[in-house]
Amino acid sequence: MSTSYSRRGLLLGGAAGVAGVGLAACSASTTGPSANATAPAVPSREVDFAIVGAGFAGLTAARELVAQGHSVVVLEARDRVGGRVLNHDLGGGHITEVGGEYIGPTMDRLSALAKAVGVDTFKTYNAGSNVLILKGKRTLYPATGLPTDPSVAGDLLKLIGTIDALAKDVPVDTPWTAKRADEFDSQTLETFLLTQVSNSGARTLVDVAIKSIWGAEARDLSLLFALWYVAVAGNETTPGSFARLVTTEGGSQDSRFVGGSQLIPIKMAKALGERVVLSSPVRRIVQNGKSVTVTSDKLTVKAGRVIVAVPPAVSAFIDYSPLLPARRAQLLQRAPQGSIVKAEAVYDKPFWRDAKLSGQAVADNGMARSTFDNSPPGGSPGVLFGFVGGKEARAWNDVAPSARRDGVLKEFAAYFGADALKPTDFIEKNFSDEEWTRGCPVAYLPPGVLSDYGTAIREPVGRIHWAGTETATYWNGYMDGAVRSGERVAKEVIRAG
Amino acid sequence: MSTSYSRRGLLLGGAAGVAGVGLAACSASTTGPSANATAPAVPSREVDFAIVGAGFAGLTAARELVAQGHSVVVLEARDRVGGRVLNHDLGGGHITEVGGEYIGPTMDRLSALAKAVGVDTFKTYNAGSNVLILKGKRTLYPATGLPTDPSVAGDLLKLIGTIDALAKDVPVDTPWTAKRADEFDSQTLETFLLTQVSNSGARTLVDVAIKSIWGAEARDLSLLFALWYVAVAGNETTPGSFARLVTTEGGSQDSRFVGGSQLIPIKMAKALGERVVLSSPVRRIVQNGKSVTVTSDKLTVKAGRVIVAVPPAVSAFIDYSPLLPARRAQLLQRAPQGSIVKAEAVYDKPFWRDAKLSGQAVADNGMARSTFDNSPPGGSPGVLFGFVGGKEARAWNDVAPSARRDGVLKEFAAYFGADALKPTDFIEKNFSDEEWTRGCPVAYLPPGVLSDYGTAIREPVGRIHWAGTETATYWNGYMDGAVRSGERVAKEVIRAG
Repeated sequence: MSTSYSRRGLLLGGAAGVAGVGLAACSASTTGPSANATAPAVPSREVDFAIVGAGFAGLTAARELVAQGHSVVVLEARDRVGGRVLNHDLGGGHITEVGGEYIGPTMDRLSALAKAVGVDTFKTYNAGSNVLILKGKRTLYPATGLPTDPSVAGDLLKLIGTIDALAKDVPVDTPWTAKRADEFDSQTLETFLLTQVSNSGARTLVDVAIKSIWGAEARDLSLLFALWYVAVAGNETTPGSFARLVTTEGGSQDSRFVGGSQLIPIKMAKALGERVVLSSPVRRIVQNGKSVTVTSDKLTVKAGRVIVAVPPAVSAFIDYSPLLPARRAQLLQRAPQGSIVKAEAVYDKPFWRDAKLSGQAVADNGMARSTFDNSPPGGSPGVLFGFVGGKEARAWNDVAPSARRDGVLKEFAAYFGADALKPTDFIEKNFSDEEWTRGCPVAYLPPGVLSDYGTAIREPVGRIHWAGTETATYWNGYMDGAVRSGERVAKEVIRAG
Repeated sequence: MSTSYSRRGLLLGGAAGVAGVGLAACSASTTGPSANATAPAVPSREVDFAIVGAGFAGLTAARELVAQGHSVVVLEARDRVGGRVLNHDLGGGHITEVGGEYIGPTMDRLSALAKAVGVDTFKTYNAGSNVLILKGKRTLYPATGLPTDPSVAGDLLKLIGTIDALAKDVPVDTPWTAKRADEFDSQTLETFLLTQVSNSGARTLVDVAIKSIWGAEARDLSLLFALWYVAVAGNETTPGSFARLVTTEGGSQDSRFVGGSQLIPIKMAKALGERVVLSSPVRRIVQNGKSVTVTSDKLTVKAGRVIVAVPPAVSAFIDYSPLLPARRAQLLQRAPQGSIVKAEAVYDKPFWRDAKLSGQAVADNGMARSTFDNSPPGGSPGVLFGFVGGKEARAWNDVAPSARRDGVLKEFAAYFGADALKPTDFIEKNFSDEEWTRGCPVAYLPPGVLSDYGTAIREPVGRIHWAGTETATYWNGYMDGAVRSGERVAKEVIRAG
């Protein structure tokens, strides 16, 4: 008997427990929130800690708590684990990813977790040249560094230096206490960039980075939030830097996971066995002075405390009793998910490598303005993915699927040659369409939110504790941040007793 | 037999229908969204149009549709009608308000509605002097105009002129098409004000206005949104102006309603009879090509179309099937409700009037930075209310209730004299704490939202149509805007068939 934690059918033999706990009588369509006379009673379980969400954060918390002898249940809305991290089966035993996938230096907790569950890494393909297209002109630069085009390189480096210097003064755990917090949280990143960059090429490159990093535009973001996000792109000994966010080798896209990044949560869930309940959206959290009752479609859980480990916008759909305090409830109205699409083309082989191209491109126009080689370790098949982020991602659904495909393939061809026009498959993933994510890669904060609502980001509400990458103080927005948040919250609930 | 549409007990004789439709078996506590074996079956009704929310927008739509021979049901989550508009019974037949309450020139649709249902207006008390406190210095100026203090008056007028001039170029129905939309939606109102006002006194006055108008700070708002909001503070023949938003006589605070503003929705609901179902939160909206099914706690409604007439953040709690398209769903993550508290003190008489004070004050410090005389028409009892808005409203729950009361009363005393310290009653209303509002007075938009999500504000989603003051193209954020949205959506659903 085997249990699948992946919708895509990554079968793992030997799991002892069955997710769903034999509740075949509860159909997955029992999702209506209204009272229903024909609905069967759902079973209940009593545990030390209930956990909402089986992404990296929730599963890490569960793993830590179980290791220390506590009983837990993880309630997951989807029929799979991993949240914003999702493998895609290419067939023939090959895997690529359509969600979060990279690991790089200073992502220590993700690294330790991968080692602990036995998932190996491999270097992101980064040989040869990257392609740069500015105002219709195509140039190449070495994949090992930032663009070398003399018309942009100097100004780009200067800007990155300025951003890093300002980020150094933003405390990772309380960014709203930064000396210039008022000033920085009163303006958009766009306003700041207008004062810093007059070089349109350099500015374009930064905009492409912003679309990929946040799934947003510079005008959407508080400058303080952006600086904080840079500040936390590091660890306790290595300060964050903007370059690390956009760099492949030595940066946040340095390496990938053999078997796909989702293999880590799949392995964690397997070890947790029947503690993980899939296809069971949490609808209600009721707390009193002594315990908390978490109602999901398949199971009602009574626990000492509950950890909510889903994106802020998704946590807002839960019916809390008593109501969340206004500061927390209004924070959830002010932490929107970004907008990003991964558009991926599969080829028999990574043809761009033969032309000494890395598969990485940056362009000032089009839908997929940055790309990566997303092939499996052996380079077969070849996979290219493009980030469609911010404004273009928001307009994605306005375009017919065939036109999206044709448009992206034409862009790939402009970057890497006409071979790009004939893929064997084309995959797109838009987490903005997904009920249990609502946007990717991360929640971002508009101006004013850190100042007036920042204290609510991690502050427990009675017996409710918050996890998820959006609560992380290093690598916020990344898998590593999610793992860190899971470790932090596990300590927090144990300490709270 | 009489039916109360007001939690405060404004009994109205002679209502034909009973809200709740005799569903005594359904207790109000049946709010849990999970399947529940013991829940009784809810009855169902079939109508032309279902309406979610019995505020001004929903009730106006219902009234218009019924007048044209259509069948409707209005599903209201609360045990009262009126939404953000709420009377407070002072005893002895006297009423004051703790929510929206004013009417002024160009609010034509609200005016016509009030006349139609037989609710009279009276002038907001505006005689004598207003109080201005800047840097601890208390001065007076005539209640009939803007502050006359020569240190601020000139710069204030100049700024208002600039704002009005810029607002004139913002189309009321498609603000994102304004010529300078990109520029204005890329910056906060704060960034703009920094370039316009160096006079700290004038700036303070504008900040107090922003707190009261939007329940927000200048840094929270897109400049384009703010200019649009000014542009729509008028009607088809009279362009909007900032001064109108902050003015009592001749402005948006010109007049009030005899019997309290909530009397209008109460009367509308009474006429609609059993079409209005109270205490019945809508949990789910399922549409197919032919009809829509709206599930609420007390009634399941099958309709040709549904009108959702609640604040954007509240509409986000509904479970939509199929899911809302990403543009609409992400708009709901980006349209936060403001934060404002009304703190009201009741006195035997309006003692400030004897001192030739209007009861209006503006201050650069404290919790309640602007005040009004909120006494009933006869001036007995005397009522003062203070707006606690933006940052101070967000911090309201951090302060103990007794300290809030003491603090506000001390501020009232500084404005109007020591008599303010001994009220007969103290009332506070914070809609940020209310499940079915989540913040007042209105949803505001941070930078970038109008540009990338503006088209989704009123665009129907299949058989779902949107109303509420946030969808209005005149007097957005006000009762008049809500009425206009109800009239517009009624035409819209009839046209759609």
